[in-house]
Amino acid sequence: MANHSTTSSPAETPAGERPGVRAQTAPGRWDGVAVMPYKQSAEAPFRDVTRQLLFADPKLACEWRYFEVEEGGWSTLERHAHVHAVMIHRGQGQCLVGSVISDVAAGDLVFIPPLTWHQFRANRNDCLGFLCVVNAARDRPQLPGGDDLAELRRNSAVAEFIRG
Amino acid sequence: MANHSTTSSPAETPAGERPGVRAQTAPGRWDGVAVMPYKQSAEAPFRDVTRQLLFADPKLACEWRYFEVEEGGWSTLERHAHVHAVMIHRGQGQCLVGSVISDVAAGDLVFIPPLTWHQFRANRNDCLGFLCVVNAARDRPQLPGGDDLAELRRNSAVAEFIRG
Repeated sequence: MANHSTTSSPAETPAGERPGVRAQTAPGRWDGVAVMPYKQSAEAPFRDVTRQLLFADPKLACEWRYFEVEEGGWSTLERHAHVHAVMIHRGQGQCLVGSVISDVAAGDLVFIPPLTWHQFRANRNDCLGFLCVVNAARDRPQLPGGDDLAELRRNSAVAEFIRG
Repeated sequence: MANHSTTSSPAETPAGERPGVRAQTAPGRWDGVAVMPYKQSAEAPFRDVTRQLLFADPKLACEWRYFEVEEGGWSTLERHAHVHAVMIHRGQGQCLVGSVISDVAAGDLVFIPPLTWHQFRANRNDCLGFLCVVNAARDRPQLPGGDDLAELRRNSAVAEFIRG
């Protein structure tokens, strides 16, 4: 909902975010926000995930994104030097952070420290939508190699959880 | 009154965020997140607002905060050089961004450009909880002086909206 009660606009922000309100038009969908592929690269494995860029502006040091994992889908198992600040926006699922697997639901917070393996999964019969704030300037994700996977799989719960 | 724009450290020095999940324990409340006063300063006018710091970490260039405006309450009418990226988390209310007054509800996005007057209000019989991402290093808010208020009040809708 965003009913404007006046017609004038704030000064435009060149090459920046649109000032003022952009309404949520449906759960996980916003006015003027494009639903994009999760990854540009075909090399990183994932299943049934979309990406939306909610806020990106030259004057903001972070980007605020929204990812939605469909029923039965999963994000890429990866790690990187930059951190992730996450809030679950809708649905339920699980996440792996390091070697800890947690159930998560709308409103829960998740912090992913540097160089920590992580993956998000949606529950059956549900989707998992989450907000994710990251530094605008950041390193590229690393995928697990054979040695990494062998190490991860020494934990039987992690071995059962991970997809990729 | 025109406060000088000076870059300052955030009020809380981030010591590193707790890894993994912190559950939402009730609407707008989280495990391990303290509910704090909205402002440290008694000079800035506001009514019935609380502040929570959801994410602050030395490796994250932004802070992710949560503000809750109680029924009938309002945030400070202010502006600053840094931008605000906002998502309404719960409840309904209105916001002023520049000279535009909008109804907002859970899920809506609001972007506040540099040096743009803004204020949030909760509806009667409701509260307005909103997520707000800002640069960790940012200037201090400016309060409107007499000339600023006179200019704002030339717009009758704005004149009726603003509190302070």
